[in-house]
Amino acid sequence: MKSGVQTLRWRDGRLELIDQRRLPQRVEFVACDSAAAVTQAIRDMVVRGAPAIGCAAAYGIALEARRVKDAPPSEFAAAMTRAFDALAGSRPTAVNLFWALERMRAVLEKAKGSAPDEIAGRLIQEAHRILAEDVQANRAMGRHGEGLLRDGARVLTHCNAGALATAGHGTALGVIRSAVESGKRVSVIADETRPFLQGARLTAWELEQDRIPVTLITDSMSGHLMSRGEVDAVIVGADRVAANGDVANKIGTYMVAVLARRHGIPFYVAAPLSTIDLKLPDGAAIPIEERGAAEVRGFAGVEWAPGSVPARHPAFDVTPAALVTALITEKGVVHRPDREKIAALFRM
Amino acid sequence: MKSGVQTLRWRDGRLELIDQRRLPQRVEFVACDSAAAVTQAIRDMVVRGAPAIGCAAAYGIALEARRVKDAPPSEFAAAMTRAFDALAGSRPTAVNLFWALERMRAVLEKAKGSAPDEIAGRLIQEAHRILAEDVQANRAMGRHGEGLLRDGARVLTHCNAGALATAGHGTALGVIRSAVESGKRVSVIADETRPFLQGARLTAWELEQDRIPVTLITDSMSGHLMSRGEVDAVIVGADRVAANGDVANKIGTYMVAVLARRHGIPFYVAAPLSTIDLKLPDGAAIPIEERGAAEVRGFAGVEWAPGSVPARHPAFDVTPAALVTALITEKGVVHRPDREKIAALFRM
Repeated sequence: MKSGVQTLRWRDGRLELIDQRRLPQRVEFVACDSAAAVTQAIRDMVVRGAPAIGCAAAYGIALEARRVKDAPPSEFAAAMTRAFDALAGSRPTAVNLFWALERMRAVLEKAKGSAPDEIAGRLIQEAHRILAEDVQANRAMGRHGEGLLRDGARVLTHCNAGALATAGHGTALGVIRSAVESGKRVSVIADETRPFLQGARLTAWELEQDRIPVTLITDSMSGHLMSRGEVDAVIVGADRVAANGDVANKIGTYMVAVLARRHGIPFYVAAPLSTIDLKLPDGAAIPIEERGAAEVRGFAGVEWAPGSVPARHPAFDVTPAALVTALITEKGVVHRPDREKIAALFRM
Repeated sequence: MKSGVQTLRWRDGRLELIDQRRLPQRVEFVACDSAAAVTQAIRDMVVRGAPAIGCAAAYGIALEARRVKDAPPSEFAAAMTRAFDALAGSRPTAVNLFWALERMRAVLEKAKGSAPDEIAGRLIQEAHRILAEDVQANRAMGRHGEGLLRDGARVLTHCNAGALATAGHGTALGVIRSAVESGKRVSVIADETRPFLQGARLTAWELEQDRIPVTLITDSMSGHLMSRGEVDAVIVGADRVAANGDVANKIGTYMVAVLARRHGIPFYVAAPLSTIDLKLPDGAAIPIEERGAAEVRGFAGVEWAPGSVPARHPAFDVTPAALVTALITEKGVVHRPDREKIAALFRM
């Protein structure tokens, strides 16, 4: 099953991003031809999802190199520094962003002294490679993870960890897609995921495109359905996994994990190694982005709460490793993840 | 502190209900002059909140008696039967509705043989009494419960259990109001409470009217705030409490209770005795209303999810008594509520 959804595409020398603020009402693309344009697209959530943000950032660097390739060497270097800084400052929590920028920086360093055209070309190739590898990693995660789902499984997911959050196939939804490909009947329960409504707008739309049965609920309903025996497994993606297996993911994930544990329901996290941050000992060190209050007072510019009411808006939370039944990666499934098992993944 | 909010008011022989679908953008009243009009208002959530629904239903019966008082006796009796049936069928979960209808039925029975004018008058007096008693009960709950909150407490609440859910003062918010009246600085964290957004629209508005500090969050954020030590207590209302202390309340309450227990945060339920249903042994027997999918796909007629996606919409969930730190009633505070302690309340 190849998802027809194209989250990022390279066309006529530009990066085109499906506009995730407009889905599902409109399928529109935003074209980017500079690091500044990509930075803005990430900030505004035109593109979101940890792996997709990483891919977009890589293209942002490549686009910038091409844009300034005819400038004098010192200006070229300054522009590239600005591009790295701007992209690194676009969103703080998803580590794939920083991981992708490091890969691009290594290519840039290695190409030092080459002709600017040559440098730009190598950066574009590296961005293409990051994108292709992401799809491969998701496919591998799907193969490894789909065995965890039985025929007939009712799988709850939070936010969107699908094709729209990645270069294709998806992490959490990739495991579900692979299970469906292998002939299992799997149905999905999608948390709507306030405030940006990634579940209601993106997961529901994406799964309907692939004709995978999906039922929408509000974020407040998962516990009730679990208590009634209507959920067989939970699979979510991740924005950053610490060295000990603590998982930062979309706000609300932690509550789902606590309820799943209470009801003996397995809680799986599907994430590529590029989402694992070995530099952070545990989840307490993961920076949690705070976004604007207006997004909590309403949606898409319509505010239903009093405009005067203050709001908190932590965009992510941390689920302790102890609540994670298994971490599904492209290198295999890690049951009861901990520091040693995660370190071992990087030696495979 | 007297809340200026008037949820139900008797004016010129009609029941006027503040239109809770329009708040906080507009403060409008819907006037009802028959049982059918009140039934529709309850169904459409013009009025909501278990105690407020009970009061409205009582007025619905009284209005109907006055409306048909000049009809022949058999028609009068038939109209009253239809009124009781319609109101009883308006919403299934909140037991105060049935409790109020029973009180009205008892008055009607006792008045049998009197002149219709006399019967209608007695029913109107009984509705006034139910309303006044509700305010008194909320005031008593506030006095009993406010001792549970310390100065500076940050109190999380779910849905709206305030003046807007009652005849005045509120149950959960009544305890908070009483704590503020007694000189404590209490701040409130309000879950927005999807899908009807009672927290974002009603609790935020109502508390701002009284200048009680309130911060809005989405339903997915309470666990994160608890994990960061930012919540000192939880207080919610109830739609029906079973004989063993299991609590049916707005969908999402159960998840809040589970998270509060995990973090050692007290979880209080404020509810008058009219919300306790001794006929039901436990929460499993409480009927849970399922509402329409469109309310989950969007809000107020705007749908952001694909129109084709199915949705579940259980409007309430059940929190087991074991998760309730204390039940706050007008007769006093019941710590670790159970069957015996609850039965004792009715003998006081």
